Amino acid sequence: MTNWLEEKVSQIKNIDLKLMVQAQERLDNLTKPLGSLGRLEEIAKTIVGITGDPGPVIRWKTVFTFAADHGVTAEGVSAYPAEVTPQMVLNFLRGGAGINVLARHAGAKVVVADLGVAADLSHLDGLVHRKVRMGTNNMTQGPAMSQEEALKAIRTGFELVSQESQEGLGLIGTGDMGIGNTTAASALATVFTGQPVAEVTGRGTGIDDSTLQNKVRVIEKALAVNRPSPAAPLDALAKVGGLEIAGLVGVILAGAVRRIPILIDGFISGAAALAASAVAPKAKNFLIASHQSVEKGHAHVLRHLELEPLLNLRLRLGEGTGAALAMPIVEAACKILNEMATFGEAGVSERSDLKDVKS
Amino acid sequence: MTNWLEEKVSQIKNIDLKLMVQAQERLDNLTKPLGSLGRLEEIAKTIVGITGDPGPVIRWKTVFTFAADHGVTAEGVSAYPAEVTPQMVLNFLRGGAGINVLARHAGAKVVVADLGVAADLSHLDGLVHRKVRMGTNNMTQGPAMSQEEALKAIRTGFELVSQESQEGLGLIGTGDMGIGNTTAASALATVFTGQPVAEVTGRGTGIDDSTLQNKVRVIEKALAVNRPSPAAPLDALAKVGGLEIAGLVGVILAGAVRRIPILIDGFISGAAALAASAVAPKAKNFLIASHQSVEKGHAHVLRHLELEPLLNLRLRLGEGTGAALAMPIVEAACKILNEMATFGEAGVSERSDLKDVKS
Repeated sequence: MTNWLEEKVSQIKNIDLKLMVQAQERLDNLTKPLGSLGRLEEIAKTIVGITGDPGPVIRWKTVFTFAADHGVTAEGVSAYPAEVTPQMVLNFLRGGAGINVLARHAGAKVVVADLGVAADLSHLDGLVHRKVRMGTNNMTQGPAMSQEEALKAIRTGFELVSQESQEGLGLIGTGDMGIGNTTAASALATVFTGQPVAEVTGRGTGIDDSTLQNKVRVIEKALAVNRPSPAAPLDALAKVGGLEIAGLVGVILAGAVRRIPILIDGFISGAAALAASAVAPKAKNFLIASHQSVEKGHAHVLRHLELEPLLNLRLRLGEGTGAALAMPIVEAACKILNEMATFGEAGVSERSDLKDVKS
Repeated sequence: MTNWLEEKVSQIKNIDLKLMVQAQERLDNLTKPLGSLGRLEEIAKTIVGITGDPGPVIRWKTVFTFAADHGVTAEGVSAYPAEVTPQMVLNFLRGGAGINVLARHAGAKVVVADLGVAADLSHLDGLVHRKVRMGTNNMTQGPAMSQEEALKAIRTGFELVSQESQEGLGLIGTGDMGIGNTTAASALATVFTGQPVAEVTGRGTGIDDSTLQNKVRVIEKALAVNRPSPAAPLDALAKVGGLEIAGLVGVILAGAVRRIPILIDGFISGAAALAASAVAPKAKNFLIASHQSVEKGHAHVLRHLELEPLLNLRLRLGEGTGAALAMPIVEAACKILNEMATFGEAGVSERSDLKDVKS
């Protein structure tokens, strides 16, 4: 790894287990049966541990939606033509895409950045122009990009979070746009989970059976040609990843360094989370899984990350839509911790068996 | 059934299937892969069918949290003493309970009504005073209440929705508070789903194994003594139900009559939904299941109602907390339908295979 990356990884602290125990004590004193708010209580505790704040309040939320193209689309792996990537970027900027609607609903900002779209978008207002290169190479022919390029994309994601956090960012969402990127994500999922390609390769935007079989073969070829290893995560990311995925690795690392909880979206974001956790094992503790995607490999990704998704709504859109949709639940969890009355404050009798013990 | 009830049931219309087909057409033209927003798309369509509005906008949301006591608590079925019911009502009015926090977060109003708390609450401001009686009778000794009392509670729930709908109510949540009410709900679940008592009886607020065994025996005795039948739902509700549950039956019927979608909360609300659907089979089409509760019988209830829950967050608090938590998701679904751009509007290419067919 490079000096810059090593330095950032070394800045990631452990989450605060002591504060989490205190948060559980407070949760147990709130006017409700013990544990009856289930996962809301777990999330509240997790946010306390991540932020180091016993009463965390989420003021600002941002979804980082990174766009890039994939040379592997030349192999016929997607239902949509590659020109959809820049078209959707335009749709993001006009506010008409799914992520715009759901982020507005959640009160979250969307940072749309071009990490590597294979079209000149330099004329577009509102787009964060950080193109590393015009899409990746076809990974069946060699590495998708160089390690330097992957690192540049990681640094870009890291810097964009740093810029946003000046304003008091309390919750990060990850999002992606890139025709062909489930192919890259499946390749990374194979590398980092050890599952066979066919186990982690799904229909993406909606390909048919024969295209799916081709997609599996394409990924197997890319892995055979490049021989990526989970022990060399930056190298693997460069060889079979994507520029938007590398950018999201940077977002995750920045969230972990700055102790900001990161809501990861679906399969593409999950692949970024696998790579980020391989680079920085402690980063995993700063992640919250927003949802369980329909995309076949996602369940394996979440199992490997030891994350349980908040939602299971059969989503498979990407863009950060699942992350935006889960944001109100994460906020609700914090409010439970901060705003509910305790038994003592409310003058409510506790469990009869507990009372007997006390009296 | 009574004339009043028959009249209300007859006013419930079918949902608008034609508009739902049109909504699906619009959803399929939005800038996303077909069906990729999963359950959000289903919910959007459902709301269109319920409301008869092709572009539904939810302006006002209200959770109806009804409180009442249960004579069956004399049989030692709960972990908490019955005095917790009025104490929690006070907590609701002060804004310190789970439902207050989550409804505020969702931007929903909470209507807290006393349908039958076994304490004089007439001095409390902010409480809707509609006490039918001071709690139910112990149902192991005979009917929990008379049919007239059950009907009065149903009418109360119906009227409270009517009052709220003058202001343009767009989404209803159901909620409950009543120590002992999982016992009544389990009895009703047995009546309406046909499952054995042990299959639909859980730990409620958190009882231990021996209390759970006792709870099952108590419910079996109440059913043996009262012999309620699913073919006579009002009678069953009176014999082994509860006043807050009957009130929620009225809420559901009113929502169905007024074509307002009803987000049902957990197990208690599910029991009310079973009774309401037995009284008025068409009412089922106006229901959305907010979450899958930890309470054992809830899965059976939802299966019987043919509803798939939106959330599975291991909640078991009641009060309407699950309904409040799911409200932002229902709103998000409507916004997807109304605010996303179509392929044509955004200038985004459609699926390559579809394009080939068209060109």
